[in-house]
Amino acid sequence: MARIAVVAGDGIGPEVVAQALKVLDAVLPGVEATQYDLGAARYHRTGEVLPDSVLTELAGHDAILLGAVGDPTVPPGVLERGLLLKLRFAFDQYVNLRPSRLWPGVPGPLANVKPGEVDLVVVREGTEGLYAGAGGSLHRDTPAEVATEESLNTRHGVERVIRDAFARAGRRERRKVTLVHKTNVLTHAGSLWARAFAAVAAEHPDVATEYQHVDAAAMFLVTQPQRYDVVVTDNLFGDILTDIAAAVTGGIGLAASGCINPTGAYPSMFEPVHGSAPDIAGKGVADPVAAVLSAALLLDQLGHADAAARVTGAVAAELAGRTPGVALRTDEVGDRLAAQAVA
Amino acid sequence: MARIAVVAGDGIGPEVVAQALKVLDAVLPGVEATQYDLGAARYHRTGEVLPDSVLTELAGHDAILLGAVGDPTVPPGVLERGLLLKLRFAFDQYVNLRPSRLWPGVPGPLANVKPGEVDLVVVREGTEGLYAGAGGSLHRDTPAEVATEESLNTRHGVERVIRDAFARAGRRERRKVTLVHKTNVLTHAGSLWARAFAAVAAEHPDVATEYQHVDAAAMFLVTQPQRYDVVVTDNLFGDILTDIAAAVTGGIGLAASGCINPTGAYPSMFEPVHGSAPDIAGKGVADPVAAVLSAALLLDQLGHADAAARVTGAVAAELAGRTPGVALRTDEVGDRLAAQAVA
Ligand SMILES: CC(C)[C@H](C(=O)O)[C@@H](O)C(=O)O
Ligand SMILES: CC(C)[C@H](C(=O)O)[C@@H](O)C(=O)O
Repeated sequence: MARIAVVAGDGIGPEVVAQALKVLDAVLPGVEATQYDLGAARYHRTGEVLPDSVLTELAGHDAILLGAVGDPTVPPGVLERGLLLKLRFAFDQYVNLRPSRLWPGVPGPLANVKPGEVDLVVVREGTEGLYAGAGGSLHRDTPAEVATEESLNTRHGVERVIRDAFARAGRRERRKVTLVHKTNVLTHAGSLWARAFAAVAAEHPDVATEYQHVDAAAMFLVTQPQRYDVVVTDNLFGDILTDIAAAVTGGIGLAASGCINPTGAYPSMFEPVHGSAPDIAGKGVADPVAAVLSAALLLDQLGHADAAARVTGAVAAELAGRTPGVALRTDEVGDRLAAQAVA
Repeated sequence: MARIAVVAGDGIGPEVVAQALKVLDAVLPGVEATQYDLGAARYHRTGEVLPDSVLTELAGHDAILLGAVGDPTVPPGVLERGLLLKLRFAFDQYVNLRPSRLWPGVPGPLANVKPGEVDLVVVREGTEGLYAGAGGSLHRDTPAEVATEESLNTRHGVERVIRDAFARAGRRERRKVTLVHKTNVLTHAGSLWARAFAAVAAEHPDVATEYQHVDAAAMFLVTQPQRYDVVVTDNLFGDILTDIAAAVTGGIGLAASGCINPTGAYPSMFEPVHGSAPDIAGKGVADPVAAVLSAALLLDQLGHADAAARVTGAVAAELAGRTPGVALRTDEVGDRLAAQAVA
């Protein structure tokens, strides 16, 4: 039986995670969920962000389901770096998976894109690049101050995430991978990415490939998001591109993500892309769809592809039946999704 | 009399630059234009990208007007780094200015944004960050390969571009500056940017300020581009954000840019954001509006604000009168704009 560590977190985190667990339990009865108290509340109470003992306990689970962490009262960066990024790096979650679909029933912002036309997934590298924390500064607070940030890229790290992207593309209908980088400016890292991409592509003659500079990709995600199938890119580019992809498919309120360690050596982590939304917390009006879709990614990763598909299908039905502008109740949506997923 | 160096370049470059010069000559009769042959054609003919002697000659002009350089036959990066970036760095063009307006008459991609509602300008840093060329690699083409790219940021470089952004905001109606960075991950450079921003903001109590992470800004440029007035950001973030801003305001086909050295120590350079578009080159169907708007930025920079406003007004009239889908003739558009600008 799957053992899930649950970090409900702050704000609307607990509310939406409760629905995701409801749905998980419906499609995989008896799933074992252990709650971990991490986030802004714990930080304020104890000063702790992620104690080593908790990290060790988390490591013993099959997967982690996270709601949202963060609150305006916590200094910026504390929870991001101390919790989210620490888990990604400690558990070597090198595939940061971010699917974007324009679901029928969801009003997207683009006039010329019809529901159902966008169905892409960004495979964002999760353990390297500018997220390595390799920076520094000199002469701080003087006119002579200099600050650096270094992007670190290894063949090991780049090739493994590209392999994952090709494997995913091979299982999809369009079988296409777009590499996004900025090879004309970041020549060293860009060349490494381009050569690793070419090498892996040569092993997958059945998968179509293309390359785009990150600025062009940012533009095309707005003007022609339909053109993408699988996009593979570095950590920071992926951070930016996935928010654009979310924006053109109805907003981060619907976006799911997985920080995946495909080797299984450590647990993967699944979380909605949205934040803790303190303004609507506790009111029971947060949309749990992104959390539930994240649970579907979790199911898929743990080998329950059928259950994942049922959950995704339930979400599709839910969204197709919505009337834009009509308020929802978090728990009612959860009930409907759980029922629909086993119908 | 203004002395302009003209780099018409490749593809549609010469066609659109000819219209920009036509308009310049109409509003500033007698403007002295000297053509420089640089770009893919020269590279193929002579192997040269930007000889030092030409760099010295360019330095003697009041401004540079560039059409487009590049061709699929030139290895990627050669002209970008050897010509465009070299000029930006050699002439210390630290303000990379990119206005975006959704002009009445232009069909934008966003369903809920009306013409006239978007009028923003991105002040992109142009001489630092990841564009410094500070990277390297080890163990190339082996499994042990590592590649780095370093973002270099100085208080000097950051503060001066922020000052420029505040000065511009002070001359605009909404008087608002948004700083975009990624302070929660790029903590060293982010902190430098945030502190310099706070210091300059304190000198401008009449200008409203906000901060956004780059991923959030990329999203809001799609969902609420109306909210921005002046955006100041680093070199790479600016590269990406300005393509999004162009996309939501009708595409890079209409986007103008200036690489500006506000001190006047070296000439500033003005160019349409679009490329050389070899597929339509020589057919006389390229839209010269972006080149003409770039000429308006040039006029403004050289102190001819009235002439700049007349050119911008002519473009507004031209765009408002267009019927979407109807083909245009490059020289006819140029004639109309020149006539309208002095009407
Ligand atoms: C919170 C932040 C550190 C994080 C990131 O930059 O990866 C977030 O933006 C995301 O995309 O998950
Ligand atoms: C061609 C390239 C080097 C350049 C850049 O990255 O600055 C371009 O994308 C731009 O925005 O002017």
